[in-house]
Amino acid sequence: MDEATLYFRIDRLFADYCACLDEDELERWPELFTADGDYRMISRENHDAGHPIPLLWLAGRGMMADRIYSLRNANIYAANRYRHAQSAVRVLGEENGEYRVSSSYIVVQTLHDTFSEVYQAGAYYDRLVLDDGQLRFRERLVVYDTARVKTLLAAPV
Amino acid sequence: MDEATLYFRIDRLFADYCACLDEDELERWPELFTADGDYRMISRENHDAGHPIPLLWLAGRGMMADRIYSLRNANIYAANRYRHAQSAVRVLGEENGEYRVSSSYIVVQTLHDTFSEVYQAGAYYDRLVLDDGQLRFRERLVVYDTARVKTLLAAPV
Amino acid sequence: MDEATLYFRIDRLFADYCACLDEDELERWPELFTADGDYRMISRENHDAGHPIPLLWLAGRGMMADRIYSLRNANIYAANRYRHAQSAVRVLGEENGEYRVSSSYIVVQTLHDTFSEVYQAGAYYDRLVLDDGQLRFRERLVVYDTARVKTLLAAPV
Repeated sequence: MDEATLYFRIDRLFADYCACLDEDELERWPELFTADGDYRMISRENHDAGHPIPLLWLAGRGMMADRIYSLRNANIYAANRYRHAQSAVRVLGEENGEYRVSSSYIVVQTLHDTFSEVYQAGAYYDRLVLDDGQLRFRERLVVYDTARVKTLLAAPV
Repeated sequence: MDEATLYFRIDRLFADYCACLDEDELERWPELFTADGDYRMISRENHDAGHPIPLLWLAGRGMMADRIYSLRNANIYAANRYRHAQSAVRVLGEENGEYRVSSSYIVVQTLHDTFSEVYQAGAYYDRLVLDDGQLRFRERLVVYDTARVKTLLAAPV
Repeated sequence: MDEATLYFRIDRLFADYCACLDEDELERWPELFTADGDYRMISRENHDAGHPIPLLWLAGRGMMADRIYSLRNANIYAANRYRHAQSAVRVLGEENGEYRVSSSYIVVQTLHDTFSEVYQAGAYYDRLVLDDGQLRFRERLVVYDTARVKTLLAAPV
């Protein structure tokens, strides 16, 4: 894949990822991962210190679908919306058809009856592969910058 | 138009749209719409409930130019700047040469003597057409996430 | 260079610029400028009034490297992270192989033990050139929107 095509496909994948979360199309979110895809969220502090325990860990599409089902049916939380901003997208390397990609994100959250505010900022560290002709996440590691997580962490970031 | 070209042209249109508003080039803003173009802004709550009354509705370039003229000459409001972030750009479909496109936006506002802060976040739902060889908005529907609008809504978002 | 290629290369340069600052790879930051590259940061108010004195001025890679060295070794400031969002990228013109480009930025800052918040928003006005086959900044002028700068301005924006 030439460089321009690769970045174009990454842009489309990342746009679709943000759209799933921002447009409340959560059910489509696990499909952006490979069947054994891995989603983890960890603080910058723990990540840099080599403490591997994530705040959230979903291993495989099954766990992801469970999480979404639980959000839809079991959890009680205030209605809210995310809006993502993405930048600093870089392909760091490629090995055996797997692309390592890093990027920055900013998420703004709006609770129904409040003003919109910055919810979280951080970095995505991804391993992407072509899976059935589709570019998908084999791994998305979310490293958020703050040591303090706002209480309402329901949907993935 | 192949997919890469289409997204490239949408990127340029959206960049120009943001630049008109962020760089205070409001007079160019109506030209990004078709002559009968439609701009509406409505809250997520009303949009989802099927209540069609928008907070702001400009039907056609004439009304848009009037709005800009009024901002420049008649309205009294504090000097301020917008800065947009855009993400999650997706072409949802195409019919009879009209492209349906959705995206997320975050707008940060700065009043002259205050710090910059998140002003609004939401989604754009667009209908785009080739008009005299230019990609333009036939319709831009702005759905903002919060039920509370900050007082200073002067320029379009 | 055709338009699509030019924007692609600008996107890559801007992504790398944001990544240097967001991912704490400051040592690579001067390499994105030409050897005699110019970095200035000035408020919108002073810029529009024609007052040329910048808040920060780094003329040439040497001064940039000094600044980074000082940040790493001499200055005392709270650990913090930036995350950039970029939009409204426009090529305004080209003359003698130099591209004038403008864009909008939003920077979110996170101090270790606080929540993430908007730090600054503004515009980049750039003069870009091909330098040894690489697209680089001959000049980046950062015009921030607010008249008030938050105390912690350590790294470039």
